[in-house]
Amino acid sequence: MLKGSVLAKEEIKDLEIILSGNKNELKEAASKIGISLNQFEIIDAKDIISTEEDPTKIIKEKNESSMAVGLRALNEKNIDAFITAGSTGALTVGSFYYNEKIVGVKRAAICPIMPSYDGEFLLLDAGANLNCRADVLVQFAIMGDIYSRKILKVKNPRIGLANVGIEETKGPKTHKEAYALLKSQETLNFIGNIEARYIPLGKCDVVVCDGFSGNMILKATEGTAKCIMKILKDCYTKNLKTKLAALMLHKEHKEIKQKLNYKNYGGAILLGMEKPIIKAHGNSNEETIKNAILRAVLCIKNNITTEIAKNIII
Amino acid sequence: MLKGSVLAKEEIKDLEIILSGNKNELKEAASKIGISLNQFEIIDAKDIISTEEDPTKIIKEKNESSMAVGLRALNEKNIDAFITAGSTGALTVGSFYYNEKIVGVKRAAICPIMPSYDGEFLLLDAGANLNCRADVLVQFAIMGDIYSRKILKVKNPRIGLANVGIEETKGPKTHKEAYALLKSQETLNFIGNIEARYIPLGKCDVVVCDGFSGNMILKATEGTAKCIMKILKDCYTKNLKTKLAALMLHKEHKEIKQKLNYKNYGGAILLGMEKPIIKAHGNSNEETIKNAILRAVLCIKNNITTEIAKNIII
Repeated sequence: MLKGSVLAKEEIKDLEIILSGNKNELKEAASKIGISLNQFEIIDAKDIISTEEDPTKIIKEKNESSMAVGLRALNEKNIDAFITAGSTGALTVGSFYYNEKIVGVKRAAICPIMPSYDGEFLLLDAGANLNCRADVLVQFAIMGDIYSRKILKVKNPRIGLANVGIEETKGPKTHKEAYALLKSQETLNFIGNIEARYIPLGKCDVVVCDGFSGNMILKATEGTAKCIMKILKDCYTKNLKTKLAALMLHKEHKEIKQKLNYKNYGGAILLGMEKPIIKAHGNSNEETIKNAILRAVLCIKNNITTEIAKNIII
Repeated sequence: MLKGSVLAKEEIKDLEIILSGNKNELKEAASKIGISLNQFEIIDAKDIISTEEDPTKIIKEKNESSMAVGLRALNEKNIDAFITAGSTGALTVGSFYYNEKIVGVKRAAICPIMPSYDGEFLLLDAGANLNCRADVLVQFAIMGDIYSRKILKVKNPRIGLANVGIEETKGPKTHKEAYALLKSQETLNFIGNIEARYIPLGKCDVVVCDGFSGNMILKATEGTAKCIMKILKDCYTKNLKTKLAALMLHKEHKEIKQKLNYKNYGGAILLGMEKPIIKAHGNSNEETIKNAILRAVLCIKNNITTEIAKNIII
């Protein structure tokens, strides 16, 4: 987090970063890696909330954790955005409790950006709301459309509704209702239902889904990629011949790994909150943290909040 | 289908195969590939139902399609199992309409067998029931356990409940209830919730889920594998050096492709029906069809129906 903050400050000169965490531990960590803490404001937090803990603790026993303290500061102080690599569950619960949604937004959604065959796509919701009504799915589509245009610079984002089949009549009642509502939204480039098998192939730019199935799509994709990479690694290290071949493919494999690496995708925004709240992956390195911070800056500069407030349908 | 039927008959001498389809078209196809139709009984069917059609047509306009005719014959005649490579939707609707479930089984589930890093796993339900109550999920676990033991020869199948987090308190109400019920089933090796990212890594042998999220897991996995394979292919055909390296890895890549190929996995059974009903992939070749037929035989020989009837909890 410290290294990533320094990298971000190097890229954006007037960027002010406030660190929420245990002051003594921060000092120790900073001196160990030779970073001066003078360039940061620090909000002292006595505690932490881990990914293993019940997320709801952030509003009770763990309300002095760095994440809780940071989220309250975001709400109470003159701060523009919040970034964390901590527990997604705690972040969702904490944000909904300590922070404000954009007026008119019914539910905020976790929106990871994921690699596809020929680009990337936005998935929302990936787990903040397990059940979603049709009108909530429509709001996700509108917010995703804005984020895709303004931040990911997609011209006319193709919006798909994740479903078990492409026909309008497919899926549960919610999805049939959402389909009808989305079809009638003239401002959206709604391409209809999308089956999960076509998502990684890049058939749309924004995938709308409830948080439960979104979580399944996100994690099944991650797990499958990891599984195949492991199988390939086994194959490449099998014998001298395969090792030599792998060496010859070194540059190309590096490019593929880079492409499939979530660390390059700037984190997942909790879209619908008044101020950008961004979740970086738990395994983030300094580059990932820098990207997440720059992503937050981009959201602020592009007035994502105002855009959503202006376009949301209640 | 014809070639696969011949291959299956070659492996099992006393196997009787009945073909459901347009007699004239079957004759034409058989003579084209030099297969004698004398070895088969034929049930003439005037029509077909395609994957593009509304599945519910199988009980109305398309009740003379080869699938409808075949399913009715399964119910009315002395036939032990049914195999198709046609529309999954039509098969589900048709089976529920024309055929019987095992006494005590509330819902039948589509169960594909999928490759994992170090083996394979059974996923149920993959799309036959979009919403499932907790007691239905428990029945899926019991049926999956039996299929895994008897057919896939897994000694003590690890059963996981697909969910957004591993803790007992995670997920929607149904999943919390199902967790509690599964934990109290002493005959099951229930390992708790499983996040979708650990499924392809082989953390369990039976994945229990509702049909909607199961469909997302199945297809997101398929799509991601396809996407990565496409990316790898692009990489291998990039230039002379990469082509040479790919040539050196030819044998290993063939093995990987073989491992990831659904065609080797014997099709997806509609588990819970009185007689084995098996769905082979739409892109099946003769080898896949043979495997699906042999799978049906294995189910009959292992008395899957009796085993389920004996162990199901109502």
